[in-house]
Amino acid sequence: MAAEDGAVRSVTRALDLLGHFTEQRMVWPVAELARVSGLPKTTVVRLVATLSSTGMLWERPDGQVTVGAGLMRWARLARAAWELPFEVRAVLEALAASSRETVNLYVRQGFARVCVAQAEGPQTLRHVVRIGDEMPLWAGAASKILLGDAPADVVDAMVERAGEGLREQIAEAAAEKFAVSHGERESGASGVAAPVVDKKGRVVAALALGGPTTRFTEDRVPLFRTALADAAAEVSRLGLPAVV
Amino acid sequence: MAAEDGAVRSVTRALDLLGHFTEQRMVWPVAELARVSGLPKTTVVRLVATLSSTGMLWERPDGQVTVGAGLMRWARLARAAWELPFEVRAVLEALAASSRETVNLYVRQGFARVCVAQAEGPQTLRHVVRIGDEMPLWAGAASKILLGDAPADVVDAMVERAGEGLREQIAEAAAEKFAVSHGERESGASGVAAPVVDKKGRVVAALALGGPTTRFTEDRVPLFRTALADAAAEVSRLGLPAVV
Repeated sequence: MAAEDGAVRSVTRALDLLGHFTEQRMVWPVAELARVSGLPKTTVVRLVATLSSTGMLWERPDGQVTVGAGLMRWARLARAAWELPFEVRAVLEALAASSRETVNLYVRQGFARVCVAQAEGPQTLRHVVRIGDEMPLWAGAASKILLGDAPADVVDAMVERAGEGLREQIAEAAAEKFAVSHGERESGASGVAAPVVDKKGRVVAALALGGPTTRFTEDRVPLFRTALADAAAEVSRLGLPAVV
Repeated sequence: MAAEDGAVRSVTRALDLLGHFTEQRMVWPVAELARVSGLPKTTVVRLVATLSSTGMLWERPDGQVTVGAGLMRWARLARAAWELPFEVRAVLEALAASSRETVNLYVRQGFARVCVAQAEGPQTLRHVVRIGDEMPLWAGAASKILLGDAPADVVDAMVERAGEGLREQIAEAAAEKFAVSHGERESGASGVAAPVVDKKGRVVAALALGGPTTRFTEDRVPLFRTALADAAAEVSRLGLPAVV
């Protein structure tokens, strides 16, 4: 059991190391990686070598480390699994056009949620999330929807973070097939969300509209809700590639 | 030291597990993954949970496992690091047009080489490699170029695989800045390659032409060589995003 824990820790460390590579910072000297990760340099050297041998990282001739070319294989796979079919994209775009707010599709990823697709609204003040970005699962309308079918340990962890009130909100979102949030994650930002379900009715994703709280007023939220319910039902019917 | 080895082994296992996810087979039940990986099911369950928490894999509501949406972040990074600038692409495409053979750009990835860019030739009988695919480093013209600046342990391993003759071929390729191969990796397939270097003259990549041996004749190879040398020099001058 201790050995198993150690194994998981090593994998987590390796993935954490990968997490330091971002579009803002794509090239790292090994010594710097050791510094920011807090790991011993010898460990970093070994992890980099292992990650490089499988193409996740690439050791440049100058000794610095960058993201590996092998990731392009993953890019292909990610596209195949997560790029929305034309018909589903069209649903998201129609919803963005009619609501004039940004549409996001989220799935749960462990103890977080991640944006897998987006159709931007036409207005200047927009809810901006990048595809593939992780967002907190303890706040926001989409989280309440996703937590409706999440394992108990995930729900418990989020309730611990957000307070007992969250448990009730999750139950309400599941009953209503709808959730709304105002300024939970970010002041001045609001959202509404509805579930995308698989053929057995399990929550697969949350379809959400996000924008400034000033535009998510009491008279507009019910309109958003209707449009969102229709779109989520249509996406559920069409299915997502990763789930079908 | 033993603990360190164990750590590397865990990471390798995790990455091997990821390797089972391909475009042909994107969805796996955990039990099947345990079978094909030869790992105990409890280990697979833990690795899948760890990989899912970081978005490398995704546990579907039906319990099956597929590639994770978090990979889209990696897809973005891979593109930023490895997608060729317009000018470099143009060099590859001009070479494919003039030589009428497929142009591939390879980098070394540990003990293998990986195709990072391609411009297909116009003829029906073509050398087909997919971007991100791993190829052997012990055979082929591009390997001899890449091994010219590879660490000694990598060279030794490839020589062990291919025979002592390879060592001489690597030295010759380094001296000539050119390598040719016929049917080494695949019967009937030939290739020529030249080095792409960084500002300090270190081999960063190999630019290669590949096609059927019948078209890589004694009178055509010198023509390929000249065109390839010019193109490789131009790519070296422009630089690759992952290296610049």
